[in-house]
Amino acid sequence: MIRRIHHINFIVRDLGQAVRRYRKLFGDPVTEAEELPQRGVRLARFKVADTWLILVQPVTADSVPARFLQANGEGFFLLSCQVDDVRQAAAQAAAAGIGVKDRLPRQGLDDWQVIDLDAADLFGADIQLLESAD
Amino acid sequence: MIRRIHHINFIVRDLGQAVRRYRKLFGDPVTEAEELPQRGVRLARFKVADTWLILVQPVTADSVPARFLQANGEGFFLLSCQVDDVRQAAAQAAAAGIGVKDRLPRQGLDDWQVIDLDAADLFGADIQLLESAD
Repeated sequence: MIRRIHHINFIVRDLGQAVRRYRKLFGDPVTEAEELPQRGVRLARFKVADTWLILVQPVTADSVPARFLQANGEGFFLLSCQVDDVRQAAAQAAAAGIGVKDRLPRQGLDDWQVIDLDAADLFGADIQLLESAD
Repeated sequence: MIRRIHHINFIVRDLGQAVRRYRKLFGDPVTEAEELPQRGVRLARFKVADTWLILVQPVTADSVPARFLQANGEGFFLLSCQVDDVRQAAAQAAAAGIGVKDRLPRQGLDDWQVIDLDAADLFGADIQLLESAD
């Protein structure tokens, strides 16, 4: 059901500082300071082969990424897995006993449609299903 | 310098339980209960496109994975990035101010030669450089 690892998100406190360090490993970012206001974050994207690495800085206090930072500190946040049909994949996950956080997909970057799974059912890992034409 | 995301490790307490859940998302594992005694772990591997997802259960108390579990609980542990020459890549990382945990590579699964970077220099993310003929 999962086609590929589409992106991996890292939570950071200071996007500019993190980008300066990560570019030493991953080369120049594709974007350096995108805004995703509905998620309360600023972000930078690196591309490694066909996987995005995304540094995410919370910019509002009341958001999922901000609460993750407060609870866990900086580091790995989310693994996003591409599927052909995100609603159908979420229904399959739910039928297999994996909690689904939203009934309808939310809009991420570009044309990304995402549904988050419940980390409590995945042994602590935040995994997300994603649909995109790319 | 980094060619691709080679594998992503997750720390779990009970490998059998985690495999039963993860196969609902990622299909049948390629291996279900490998031992890597020098690392003090048992593990199971899934392949998603050309990236390995590896569930890792510590089986001894005094190991890096066991200490990670104790400090952080279950969840994402490590992102392993393939390079052409792991020693040269580690030297480049060190020259860029990113701490390198070992001077010489350690032996992972298969022919994997790995050098861990210091998460404190990467905003909390455990990232590893890896060389493999595959």
